[in-house]
Amino acid sequence: MVIPALVDLADGEPTWSVFAVSAGGVFCVSVLGVVSLREPMPNFTPRFGFLLTSVIWGTTSVVAAVPFWLSSLPITPAGGFFEAVSGLTTTGATVLSELDALQRSFLLWRAMTQWLGGIGIVAIGLFLFPFLRIGGMQVFRTESSDRSDKALPRLVSVTRALCFIYFLISLACAIVYAALGMSVFDAICHAMTTISTGGFSNHDRSFGFFQNSQLLWAAVFFMVLGALPFVLYVEVLVRGRIGNIWKDWQVRTFITGVVTVTIALTIWLDQTRNINVGDALTQAAFNVVSVVTTTGYASDDYAVWGPFAYGIFFILTFIGGASGSTTGGIKVYRFIIVFQALRRAFTRLVYPHAMQPLRFGDRIIEQDVYDSVIIYCIAFFLVYGLAILALSLAGQDFITALTGALTALTNVGPGLGETIGPAGNFAPLGEFELWLLSFVMILGRLEIMTVLILFTPVFWRD
Amino acid sequence: MVIPALVDLADGEPTWSVFAVSAGGVFCVSVLGVVSLREPMPNFTPRFGFLLTSVIWGTTSVVAAVPFWLSSLPITPAGGFFEAVSGLTTTGATVLSELDALQRSFLLWRAMTQWLGGIGIVAIGLFLFPFLRIGGMQVFRTESSDRSDKALPRLVSVTRALCFIYFLISLACAIVYAALGMSVFDAICHAMTTISTGGFSNHDRSFGFFQNSQLLWAAVFFMVLGALPFVLYVEVLVRGRIGNIWKDWQVRTFITGVVTVTIALTIWLDQTRNINVGDALTQAAFNVVSVVTTTGYASDDYAVWGPFAYGIFFILTFIGGASGSTTGGIKVYRFIIVFQALRRAFTRLVYPHAMQPLRFGDRIIEQDVYDSVIIYCIAFFLVYGLAILALSLAGQDFITALTGALTALTNVGPGLGETIGPAGNFAPLGEFELWLLSFVMILGRLEIMTVLILFTPVFWRD
Repeated sequence: MVIPALVDLADGEPTWSVFAVSAGGVFCVSVLGVVSLREPMPNFTPRFGFLLTSVIWGTTSVVAAVPFWLSSLPITPAGGFFEAVSGLTTTGATVLSELDALQRSFLLWRAMTQWLGGIGIVAIGLFLFPFLRIGGMQVFRTESSDRSDKALPRLVSVTRALCFIYFLISLACAIVYAALGMSVFDAICHAMTTISTGGFSNHDRSFGFFQNSQLLWAAVFFMVLGALPFVLYVEVLVRGRIGNIWKDWQVRTFITGVVTVTIALTIWLDQTRNINVGDALTQAAFNVVSVVTTTGYASDDYAVWGPFAYGIFFILTFIGGASGSTTGGIKVYRFIIVFQALRRAFTRLVYPHAMQPLRFGDRIIEQDVYDSVIIYCIAFFLVYGLAILALSLAGQDFITALTGALTALTNVGPGLGETIGPAGNFAPLGEFELWLLSFVMILGRLEIMTVLILFTPVFWRD
Repeated sequence: MVIPALVDLADGEPTWSVFAVSAGGVFCVSVLGVVSLREPMPNFTPRFGFLLTSVIWGTTSVVAAVPFWLSSLPITPAGGFFEAVSGLTTTGATVLSELDALQRSFLLWRAMTQWLGGIGIVAIGLFLFPFLRIGGMQVFRTESSDRSDKALPRLVSVTRALCFIYFLISLACAIVYAALGMSVFDAICHAMTTISTGGFSNHDRSFGFFQNSQLLWAAVFFMVLGALPFVLYVEVLVRGRIGNIWKDWQVRTFITGVVTVTIALTIWLDQTRNINVGDALTQAAFNVVSVVTTTGYASDDYAVWGPFAYGIFFILTFIGGASGSTTGGIKVYRFIIVFQALRRAFTRLVYPHAMQPLRFGDRIIEQDVYDSVIIYCIAFFLVYGLAILALSLAGQDFITALTGALTALTNVGPGLGETIGPAGNFAPLGEFELWLLSFVMILGRLEIMTVLILFTPVFWRD
């Protein structure tokens, strides 16, 4: 919060005091908390892990919302919390408009919440979820999730490498953006929200503001980087084998899928909307990558591209990127595992006694992993259904309820329809809807079960 | 086909020849087929079972479409096939309008296809799907699915009892309808499409035509009867214990759910639309039951009831009734099993080594059953996603694509939106869409995997 305050001071904006007061207040409360609650660290059980993860995400969201609440922005209490959660969960849905006239402190703060949220989820996905056996992430259990004493030095070194690489890619992205014509401030903010696949922009028209196709392609490249497993970059850094990235099953499936969908949409745009192939390709690639990586930038109102685009963007909103990336959504590895299970089921219907383990590349998927993946999917569709009903009950029209619940749960950002589509924003929604969607964003970010389990009696037993 | 021909003869309609020619043609081709293809019955392997089920449903659909094709109705080839499939799968979506002016032969034929399709699916669900281990139906494997020689007499007697009860309930339904004011012809046709949870009506306005709330409540009762496991009625008939029905877990869950949703919708209608409570209850009960039992009658255009109703009817379209009934959809027992699995997952996250079998009432659910249920759900959402994309590609608007694909897959009938909503019909759709939706209806009717497996290489190996 000190950084936005300094930016405002440099700009001569009186809003610097908002961030200064927020920083001071948060500091005092934190010190009080640490002093009064000092207790020995409890044993790190799964139960403690679930509680810790949810509490961290909850309190950080409250902290991040403080500047919005103290500001004189046209924002309600629910709106401020929504904006903060949308930042930390790297969703990118916003209740703010007239961004172009906003103080730079708020723009920077929004970008920073996404940037910090991005590296936060990468770390949790790498170290904590595999240990908690959430969402089938234990398939990516590495020595770094091993919690014996010997593993600690390695954990520290991997974390340091991760942060270094995250910073390095962000820097590269900012330099490229600036070189292609963004102002330095825009370049820094958008680099932070690109690499975290967050999607907050400094402009109401998002990337459409720049009218620059080179920038769109640069964003495509860095959004894809943000959607791949960051641990692969560590390996590249340590071992220097860049080819390993392409050997990864998730990466191959993801890239192949994105290219296929982009080409299909390009052909369709070219045929039906009389756009020349080059522009069609740029627009298709940017918006497909933006949605599938759960970033949520827009270069154009793709909701008016017609029915096929509408259908594609709806389906893409479910997908997401790779595990151990900053993306949300169901994620590619779960689709791979589920398709493998379907294929095996066909074999077993014909040969009931066939032994055929599930495979993920050259790895065998254990029953435990498969079960977690399925449970994640069940929880996903259960929460999704309930959220649709709740939004409908609050009076939102069907498309807003259907795509608003989805885009929050998968941390994408924009929905479809007139209210929350790529050309709209979330400000017209009521207080109840914004609290609800904030909760749904946190659910989605923490792989659902991590939070849901806090609402079961079995968690609180004993 | 002889019956509709006789009805037309009695009415003095020249269309009797359509049915007479159809009957003659089908008879000749069948005799030719039987004579020329006479071969010993092959071993009844699962592979043969899949092929047989799909082929029977496919050829029967073609046969049922012949009168539509030969008629001078304003119907395309795809439309005729769609109407026939919609009948045999007990879906109830129609491409015909001005039904009130239609010859009685066609109305009767439509009702008959649903009536026959209904008993057909009950029989297949009881005897064949458990043997094929499709969709987790093996949980209901009874001695009647046992295929040893000893079981055959029992199979015959159960089948006879089933048909008898099906006929009896249909007769009761027709008598009640007639007593409450329907014409005898309407009573017969609507009884056939009620008990089969089909939903074809003789009137464009469906049950809204009658303007009679007693009839609506009678329909509610018989639609619910059609949505419960028919094998329970056999037990009541044989053992005389009517209380057994309420002891069944599926029945309890289904009835409780329907009552809850109906009350919620009644309160909402009463509060927001200024309808008196009695009328609201009637309308809510009728339309909720109609959709959740996958019947698809309408008493009113519930699509204009507002956002909450819209959301509810969308979600209800997924649900369906009990296994071994005439309903489509995902079905209640699969929801029960999936929720049990979710509950177990919570326990296991806290106590990783907890042993806790899945239960269904007082029965333990084997891993094999759970796996089949999950695979069904995976196949369901895969087919659903692809169908949405295909309809979008064909140029259908988003709501039509989203709900059209769903209502076909779950064999409900009406979708939402202006084209295919409860006040519309499927005639405006193109040829491609109608062929596609016909295929999707058959997929849904045969629990998806039965048909899908025919498109895998493993099925045709050896």
